[in-house]
Amino acid sequence: MQDMLQEILDQVRPLLSQGQVAQYIPALAQVDPNQLGIAVHSLDGQLHCAGDAYTPFSIQSISKVFSLVQAINHSGEDIWSRLGYEPSGQAFNSLVQLEVEKGRPRNPFINAGALVICDINQSRFATPALSMRDFVRRLAGNPRIVSDTVVAESEYQHRARNAAMAWLMTAFGNFHNDVDAVLSSYFHHCALSMNCVDVARGFAFLANSGYCPHSGEHVLSARQAQQVNAIMATSGLYDEAGNFAYRVGLPGKSGVGGGIVAVVPGRYSICVWSPALNASGNSLAGIRALELLSERITGSVFSAVP
Amino acid sequence: MQDMLQEILDQVRPLLSQGQVAQYIPALAQVDPNQLGIAVHSLDGQLHCAGDAYTPFSIQSISKVFSLVQAINHSGEDIWSRLGYEPSGQAFNSLVQLEVEKGRPRNPFINAGALVICDINQSRFATPALSMRDFVRRLAGNPRIVSDTVVAESEYQHRARNAAMAWLMTAFGNFHNDVDAVLSSYFHHCALSMNCVDVARGFAFLANSGYCPHSGEHVLSARQAQQVNAIMATSGLYDEAGNFAYRVGLPGKSGVGGGIVAVVPGRYSICVWSPALNASGNSLAGIRALELLSERITGSVFSAVP
Amino acid sequence: MQDMLQEILDQVRPLLSQGQVAQYIPALAQVDPNQLGIAVHSLDGQLHCAGDAYTPFSIQSISKVFSLVQAINHSGEDIWSRLGYEPSGQAFNSLVQLEVEKGRPRNPFINAGALVICDINQSRFATPALSMRDFVRRLAGNPRIVSDTVVAESEYQHRARNAAMAWLMTAFGNFHNDVDAVLSSYFHHCALSMNCVDVARGFAFLANSGYCPHSGEHVLSARQAQQVNAIMATSGLYDEAGNFAYRVGLPGKSGVGGGIVAVVPGRYSICVWSPALNASGNSLAGIRALELLSERITGSVFSAVP
Amino acid sequence: MQDMLQEILDQVRPLLSQGQVAQYIPALAQVDPNQLGIAVHSLDGQLHCAGDAYTPFSIQSISKVFSLVQAINHSGEDIWSRLGYEPSGQAFNSLVQLEVEKGRPRNPFINAGALVICDINQSRFATPALSMRDFVRRLAGNPRIVSDTVVAESEYQHRARNAAMAWLMTAFGNFHNDVDAVLSSYFHHCALSMNCVDVARGFAFLANSGYCPHSGEHVLSARQAQQVNAIMATSGLYDEAGNFAYRVGLPGKSGVGGGIVAVVPGRYSICVWSPALNASGNSLAGIRALELLSERITGSVFSAVP
Repeated sequence: MQDMLQEILDQVRPLLSQGQVAQYIPALAQVDPNQLGIAVHSLDGQLHCAGDAYTPFSIQSISKVFSLVQAINHSGEDIWSRLGYEPSGQAFNSLVQLEVEKGRPRNPFINAGALVICDINQSRFATPALSMRDFVRRLAGNPRIVSDTVVAESEYQHRARNAAMAWLMTAFGNFHNDVDAVLSSYFHHCALSMNCVDVARGFAFLANSGYCPHSGEHVLSARQAQQVNAIMATSGLYDEAGNFAYRVGLPGKSGVGGGIVAVVPGRYSICVWSPALNASGNSLAGIRALELLSERITGSVFSAVP
Repeated sequence: MQDMLQEILDQVRPLLSQGQVAQYIPALAQVDPNQLGIAVHSLDGQLHCAGDAYTPFSIQSISKVFSLVQAINHSGEDIWSRLGYEPSGQAFNSLVQLEVEKGRPRNPFINAGALVICDINQSRFATPALSMRDFVRRLAGNPRIVSDTVVAESEYQHRARNAAMAWLMTAFGNFHNDVDAVLSSYFHHCALSMNCVDVARGFAFLANSGYCPHSGEHVLSARQAQQVNAIMATSGLYDEAGNFAYRVGLPGKSGVGGGIVAVVPGRYSICVWSPALNASGNSLAGIRALELLSERITGSVFSAVP
Repeated sequence: MQDMLQEILDQVRPLLSQGQVAQYIPALAQVDPNQLGIAVHSLDGQLHCAGDAYTPFSIQSISKVFSLVQAINHSGEDIWSRLGYEPSGQAFNSLVQLEVEKGRPRNPFINAGALVICDINQSRFATPALSMRDFVRRLAGNPRIVSDTVVAESEYQHRARNAAMAWLMTAFGNFHNDVDAVLSSYFHHCALSMNCVDVARGFAFLANSGYCPHSGEHVLSARQAQQVNAIMATSGLYDEAGNFAYRVGLPGKSGVGGGIVAVVPGRYSICVWSPALNASGNSLAGIRALELLSERITGSVFSAVP
Repeated sequence: MQDMLQEILDQVRPLLSQGQVAQYIPALAQVDPNQLGIAVHSLDGQLHCAGDAYTPFSIQSISKVFSLVQAINHSGEDIWSRLGYEPSGQAFNSLVQLEVEKGRPRNPFINAGALVICDINQSRFATPALSMRDFVRRLAGNPRIVSDTVVAESEYQHRARNAAMAWLMTAFGNFHNDVDAVLSSYFHHCALSMNCVDVARGFAFLANSGYCPHSGEHVLSARQAQQVNAIMATSGLYDEAGNFAYRVGLPGKSGVGGGIVAVVPGRYSICVWSPALNASGNSLAGIRALELLSERITGSVFSAVP
C-alpha cells in the first residue's frame, strides 16, 4: 500500500502546476501549491501515508460533514424538516435555488445547507466552535487540533455572500439565531487545521458503521453512517458530484483548502490534499489521485468486484 | 428470498392507493393501479419473484439506460462531448437549464439527455427502434419483447415538450437528425413492454461487470458498467436521486410506467413495478419495497457490511 | 375638476373591499382599508382634492423617486455605473436576477436598486435620513413632514430580505457602506408620513421640467426630469409597469402603503391613496382611479390628443 | 426639418462602423452596413427624408406591431387571455421565462408573444401571409410591397429556436395551429421588404388616434392606438426598452434588419434604418439618430414641453 500511494503521488504530481490555489481570502491564497499528501486509514487500524501527509491545511468544507454528523447526533431526524438531501445542480454558493425553493437548502453540503446545520447546532451548544473542535479532536484522536483564528477572522471579513444566504433564510423563517454569531461558528469550523492523517482517522467511523475505533465512540448508527455516505456520494463535491461518482465511485467531500476525504465502506477512510484547485473548486491532483487509488484497490462502490 | 419478497410486497401494498398512475397519455392512465410485482436476479443465475412479476408494463424511462449502453457500445467516450453526467437538480423535462447551459444536457437520464443519446444512436442505426428492441431481447433473454405501438403513437401525439427540447438543442447545434424521426425512435424505446423478470434479467450485466450471463455478451467493460451504475446512482430517479441514495443506496432507474430497476453490484439486479406514482413521478410502493429489500439484504453500496 | 375627482372616487369606492392591506409589518397591517383620497396639483398652482386627501400615510416605495432624484442631484450620471434603468421583469424583491447579473440592479425602483441608491447617498450625507426629510419638506412645501419611527423601526426588525440583497451586492463589490446603517436610512425614507396633497405637490417639479414652483428650486434639469419620468414609466409599478402604461399611460410610482403618484408632463402631478392592494402590491382602487382620471383629462402620454 | 434630418445623419454616420450586421441568416448577413436612412411623416401629410430612405430592408420584428394590430382588429380583447403586456426583462428569444410562466408570453414583442399572435391570426385568415401583406400595403399606401421569399425561406431553415418556443407553448396548450404553418406565416411577415418611407407612412395611424390618413381606414380606436403605443414604449426594443425610454422617450419598435420605427403621438411617425446593430440587436446609429431627433423636436412623451 505504502508503495502504491507513493507511485500514485508521483503520477499526479505534474497536475500541481495546472490548478489554482483558492483566492477568496488572503490566508488561503498564500498556500504553496506544490504540496501533495495522502493518508489511508484501514479498518484493521493500519495507517499508510505518503507525501505531505502530516502538513496541516484548512479543512474548509470538509467540516460540513462533521457539522452534519453533530447535528444528526444531537437533533436527529428533525433536521430534515429544515433542509433536504438532494443534489443541487447549482454552484455551492448560489442564491437562485434558495430563493425559488423558499429558503430550504437542497442539501447540507452547499453553503446554505451548511449554514442551516450550523444554525441548528448553534441552538444546541453554548460554545459551538469549541464543541466542534473537541468533537473533531476525539474523532481524529488528536488533542492538538485547533482552528486557525487568522483564517476564521479573514473569512468572517469576507462573509458577504454567506451573510446574504443566512439573511435570505431568515426572511423565509428558516434561520433562527443571530446571523453574525452563526457565521462566526461556521468559519471557525471551516478554519480547523488538520493534516491528511487527522482527516483520514477522523472519518474512520463512516467506513465502520458509525463506530470510531480510536475513541470507542458510537458516533452514528450503522444506518445513519450509510445515509451520510449516501449524501456525500450525491452531493459531496460541489457541482462535480457526478464526475466524482463516475471516476472515483466513492462517497467523498472536498474543501477549497484542497483536501478531499473519501470513504470505502467497510474498508478504508482516505484523505488526499493538494491546494491547487480545478474550475469546480476541487483539488485537481486530489481527484486524480483518488481515481487511481480507487482503480488499484477496486474501491468504487459501483463496481461488481469488492 | 422468495418469502422475503412476498413479505415485502405485503408490507408495501397499502401504498398502492396513495399514489397516482401517470396521466399524460391515455394508454398509461388506464393501467390498473392495484398491481405490484418484483423480480430479483442473482448472479449465480437464480431468479426470485413475487406478485405480478410476469405482467408486462411500459418501461418508459428505464429504456434510457439501454439507450445509453447502446450509445457507449457504438460511439464510445465521444458521447460525453454532447452531454454530461452530473445530476441536474431540475425537473426531468425542464428547458430552463438546457437554455442556460446552451443545449448541452446535464446527464443521459433527463429527457433532453436521453434525446441526445437517441440522436447519437439515430446516426448509427438504419432502424433504431428495431436495433434497440433486438438489443433488449438479447439482454433479457426473451425474444418475444415488443414495443407497444399504441403507447408509442400516443406519446408521439403528445410530443410537444420533447419536441421543444429537441428543437432547442437543434438551435444550439447539439441535435443532428430530423426531430420527428428521433422522437419516433425515442417513444418506441419508451413503449417497450416488459415484465419485472425481463427487466431484472436485462440489467444483470450491470451487476456483473458488463457481462450478460444469458446471452454470453460482453456488453460493456467492467469499468464502463461501473460508470453506468455511477450515473444511475447520481441521476437515475429524476429529482429524487438523493432520496433514493439515502433510503435505498443502490444505482437505479425509474420510469413513469411505475417500474424501477436497481443494481446491487456483484450480487443482484432487481426490478419492482407498481404503477401508482409519487409526486416526483416514481413508483411509490416501488421505492418503499426497494428500501425494505435493501435493508434486509444489506444491499446499500454505502453500507460497511457487504 | 373638483367634481370630477369626487365622481371618480365614488366610482372606485366599491374596489376598497376587494384588495388587501399590506401585511408584512404590523404598523401597516393595522391601517383602515376604507380610506381613499386624491390630490391633483396643476402647474398653474391650483390644487384640487377629494376624499381623504389630507390623511397622512406611509409613502414607502414612493420614496425611491426622492432618493433617486437626490442621488442624481449630488452624484450625477456616475450613479448609472452602479445600476441600470431597464424594467426587471421580476418581483421587486427578487434575488435571482441580482445574482445572475452579478450584483448590478436593473433599475432604481426595485428594492436592490433603491438600496444601491441609498448606499450612494449614504456616502454623501452625514445624516441621510434628515437630509432626505428636509429635501422632501422643501419639495412638498410642508415643514411638518416627518418619518414615522415606529414604522421605520418595525421595517428594520423585518429587514431580513433587504439585508440579504445588500449583503449580496456587498459580495459583488457594489455596496460600500455598512449594511445596517444604509438599511436604517432606507427604512426612514420609506416611513415618511405624507398625505396626498404633500405628495402631489412634492412631485410637481417632475411635471415642470425639474423646477419646483413652491420652493423655487431647480431640482433637476429639464432633461433629467424627463429621464426620471421615463424610468417611472417603464419601472415604476413593480411588475405591473406594462399594465399601468396600457391602462393609465403616465409615469408613476407606487408604494405598499397604498399611495400612487403620477405625472402628466407639462400639466399635473397627481397622488391617489387607498391602502387596499392588488396581488402585485399596488393600490387596487388607486390604479382604477388614475385610469379614469387619465381618460377624462386625456392624460396618457401615448395619446395623440394632448 | 429636411436639413435637420441631414445633419442628424451626418452626426451619427461614424457609428455605422461600430455595430455589426445581424448574422443569424445568410440573407441578412450580406447587407452592406454602410447604409443609413430616415423618414419622418407628419400628421399634416408632409414627408421628410434623408439618406437611404428609399432603399428597402427587411422589417423583421417591426412586423410584430402589424401582427398585433391585425389581431386586435380581428380578435379584440380576447387576445390578452393568451399573452400579457408586461416587459419581459429577458432576451427576446428566451425560453426560461416561457417555461416558468407556463407558456404564456409576457408581451407581443418577444418572439414567443409574436408567435402566439401569429397563431391567433392563423386561425382567422385563410392565407395569413397574403392578408398581412395586403394590410401593410394599405397602411403604407404602397401596393408594391412584397415579402422577400429568399429571406423567409432562409429564416424557416433556421427556425429551430422559434420552433422550440412554439412547441413549448403547444405543450402548455397555448398554441393551437400547426407549428410549421404558423412559423411559415411568421417568417413571411418578418421578411416584408419596406423602405423608411413605407414604414413611416405605415405607422402614421398610431400617431393619429388609429386613423390612417392615406387609406382612410379607421385601423384602431383612439384608445387602442394609445394602448399599442404603450406596449411599444415598455416592450418595443428587446431588453433596451428602458434605455430607449430614457434616451429617446418615444413608443418604438426595432427589428434585426436595422429598422426602428418611433411614434410621436399627435405629431409624427418616424422610421430610421441602419443595419449595423448594437449588442442588444438594435440599430446602433438608429437609436442615436432618434435620440438626437427627439431632442431637437422635444419629442419625448415624458417631457413637459410639447
